[in-house]
Amino acid sequence: MAQQKFATREEDYSKWYNELVYRADLAEHSDVRGCMIIKPYGYAIWEKIRDILDKKFKETGHSNAYFPLFIPKSYLSKEASHVEGFAKECAVVTHYRLKNAEDGSGLIVDPAAKLEEELIVRPTSETIIWNSYKNWIQSYRDLPILINQWANVVRWEMRTRLFLRTAEFLWQEGHTAHATKQEAIEEAQTMLEVYAEFAENYMAMPVIKGRKTESERFAGAEDTLCIEALMQDGKALQAGTSHFLGQNFAKAFEVKYTDKEGKQEYVWATSWGVSTRLMGALIMTHSDDEGLVLPPALAPIQVVAVPIHRSEEELAAISEKLNALGQQLKAKGITFKYDNDDNKRPGWKFAEYEAKGVPVRIAMGPRDLENGKAEVARRDTKEKISVDFEGLDEYIEQLLSDIQQNLLERAKVFRSDNMKKLDSYDQFKIEIEKGGFFLCHWDGTKETEARIKEETQATIRCIALDQEPEEGICMVTGKPSTGRVIFAKAY
Amino acid sequence: MAQQKFATREEDYSKWYNELVYRADLAEHSDVRGCMIIKPYGYAIWEKIRDILDKKFKETGHSNAYFPLFIPKSYLSKEASHVEGFAKECAVVTHYRLKNAEDGSGLIVDPAAKLEEELIVRPTSETIIWNSYKNWIQSYRDLPILINQWANVVRWEMRTRLFLRTAEFLWQEGHTAHATKQEAIEEAQTMLEVYAEFAENYMAMPVIKGRKTESERFAGAEDTLCIEALMQDGKALQAGTSHFLGQNFAKAFEVKYTDKEGKQEYVWATSWGVSTRLMGALIMTHSDDEGLVLPPALAPIQVVAVPIHRSEEELAAISEKLNALGQQLKAKGITFKYDNDDNKRPGWKFAEYEAKGVPVRIAMGPRDLENGKAEVARRDTKEKISVDFEGLDEYIEQLLSDIQQNLLERAKVFRSDNMKKLDSYDQFKIEIEKGGFFLCHWDGTKETEARIKEETQATIRCIALDQEPEEGICMVTGKPSTGRVIFAKAY
Repeated sequence: MAQQKFATREEDYSKWYNELVYRADLAEHSDVRGCMIIKPYGYAIWEKIRDILDKKFKETGHSNAYFPLFIPKSYLSKEASHVEGFAKECAVVTHYRLKNAEDGSGLIVDPAAKLEEELIVRPTSETIIWNSYKNWIQSYRDLPILINQWANVVRWEMRTRLFLRTAEFLWQEGHTAHATKQEAIEEAQTMLEVYAEFAENYMAMPVIKGRKTESERFAGAEDTLCIEALMQDGKALQAGTSHFLGQNFAKAFEVKYTDKEGKQEYVWATSWGVSTRLMGALIMTHSDDEGLVLPPALAPIQVVAVPIHRSEEELAAISEKLNALGQQLKAKGITFKYDNDDNKRPGWKFAEYEAKGVPVRIAMGPRDLENGKAEVARRDTKEKISVDFEGLDEYIEQLLSDIQQNLLERAKVFRSDNMKKLDSYDQFKIEIEKGGFFLCHWDGTKETEARIKEETQATIRCIALDQEPEEGICMVTGKPSTGRVIFAKAY
Repeated sequence: MAQQKFATREEDYSKWYNELVYRADLAEHSDVRGCMIIKPYGYAIWEKIRDILDKKFKETGHSNAYFPLFIPKSYLSKEASHVEGFAKECAVVTHYRLKNAEDGSGLIVDPAAKLEEELIVRPTSETIIWNSYKNWIQSYRDLPILINQWANVVRWEMRTRLFLRTAEFLWQEGHTAHATKQEAIEEAQTMLEVYAEFAENYMAMPVIKGRKTESERFAGAEDTLCIEALMQDGKALQAGTSHFLGQNFAKAFEVKYTDKEGKQEYVWATSWGVSTRLMGALIMTHSDDEGLVLPPALAPIQVVAVPIHRSEEELAAISEKLNALGQQLKAKGITFKYDNDDNKRPGWKFAEYEAKGVPVRIAMGPRDLENGKAEVARRDTKEKISVDFEGLDEYIEQLLSDIQQNLLERAKVFRSDNMKKLDSYDQFKIEIEKGGFFLCHWDGTKETEARIKEETQATIRCIALDQEPEEGICMVTGKPSTGRVIFAKAY
């Protein structure tokens, strides 16, 4: 089978990304505008992401629940700023029945089955959930409510990109209710930490923990915390958000509780979410021109072994060794695949598993067998080493841990190489075109933020939580500033 | 807190069911017509069902994937019998944008954002999936495709009941593609076995494995296999189905493969699914007038311990013992909750955990402490026994296994007590009103089947796979029959 020529990151980053998603068999466009099909290999990665996060949510006291897909149109209007941010582009259900056309031309929508009130396919579930919490909360004893939902949501998008921006996507949305402001603020911070820790330790993706400016906040939030990552093309990607919602939804849906003193108070809220967008972040953080590069912690197959043989006898002898290795690895909790498919040549397999980002590849031929060796190739550096078969399982275990570490370190180096302090707006306009995070002084006004966005397409990604206070002047207006904020062009 | 009086099964079975779902905090109706909210405790049971089945699907070679929520209207028409069975009652998306009404009255659907072709919220995914398989399958080497999807689906229902019949529900749908008819038939059988094994060994619910008659088949199937369970009110519940779809969808979507000889052939298909309806089956198989009864294998909390004390000193001493027991049980993989909430009295807690179906309850008071004992109450028989604290963990481990076994046995006895051979249609009309499974001779025609349904509301649940051939005459028409089929009224 001839190897197809694929775009490199250098040649066409966007084409490289799209081709990679297809060649690694992660997802594809469906015929339904803006909706993707997540293929088994891509879904297996998402399952790992989901299972690890789900465990962390439960460890931090949350339970899962499930709320309706449909939201009555009127609910969306209840929280004023929320509707402005969300209501516009969404899928609207207006009818509940089809019927056969009288002329036999096929199915038509039955005009008699028009809904009294249209239903919106959830773009996010704050409204439907707070409408339920109203009935669940009477006293301080009912608080906190710590609920998460894994679900599909729909936001109609005209320009879509697999995983990064699709009309339908999968996500989790946490929705919590608290008796005090302080407790809600702490909850939002806790969940941001969960996301950041997951991004770094599993995705091997360094993130900046920060706070959004007012303009970039979630519609309905009083404070939006986020984790921001830097992709290889120098663009930022918001990988997760955690919102302190104040009492906005409690007031919109009249959710009050009786405190210990018998007084009625509005409930405090948070919401927080990550989505299949993380798949896009994962791909763009580590992958190279040969295909996907996966951190071992999220790889559906961590180790693949390929036999190289001419005769059946050779295959039998090699298989015995590699199957034994597979058993040892499985005992260590390492996922192993032995690919002895006779229809495909080793070279084809090597390219295939490289494209799919399998962290470690073992090859074994007759010479290796004779010498008690195996060839070990690591996906991250593409290094190949001949290793003693004796103790190979332990070598691989250590190697997987090294790869996980190396990917994070490499991404950290890339980010620090592409993160600069800038004080001149003229220089900013030049540098922002090359990509990266830029730490600049800003006067804190919406107007300046909007002007920068209009003139450069860059946005304030966040104000880092660990940002040192620093007196300075806004690079655009010269007005005073108390600290640098982070600008970038973003996905 | 005063105990509310609840309906008993005897008084009002349907009310008993609805009240039970609420008092066990499993689910509730939402304001959105026909859509339910699955509450954390109910969802925790569903998660167990899902995780166990998911593992079994993977062990039988299947992978998960995700396909779009929306199906273009025209797809539904492609498979003729499929559209007849499904297309009618469904949620139809006609627009993709809302806007503010010019008179300021709120949000309205933007008439400019009308879809060219309406989208249907999936009632099941055969059409959208086979439209994809068309691109995935060229050669016999691409087969089989063994994919499962966990998803939400919508079938507009006018009369809904929590878990049993809701407009939106959660389910899994397997969709497989095969090179040969034989392989597809075997796949459908394998998955039926998976369902049956799950029902008996985890849900403790005996099921009859059978085949649907032509009238009761899935729309688009050539053969529908099913598992049928008997509820406590004598009604049958179809708990899972596995369909051999022949080449119907392959032909509708033009899915062909090249076989080893280079010949083009249509692909063979199956689909199979279970849904949140299983929750309804679980509830109605075991529960009693005090509330939910859960088999230990699916209980989110398997053991709860309640201290009974007057002083803080007593509580401290009891807590030390019960926390130690908790550690021992956790080490055995048993989920344990220690409820030392001081705001609630032991009696209230007992009723609460009874309502929630926790299999084993431990109570310990000062006298027990003194005697080195604990009171162990099992939910299934409501028996209470004083047991030595020494070795209590092992006692409980065995007890959980006994309860699991007992629930299955009890359900089997109930079923065999309510399963009769009948040869007279007059008698059938009387007996069917009392509920149960009835094994009767039927002449094999749709007309007789329809007449029985009309006259008695009973349907042929299935022809059992292990049904012995038996010469007889149809109880209605007197025409010859080769074996008995199973009639019941059903959910």
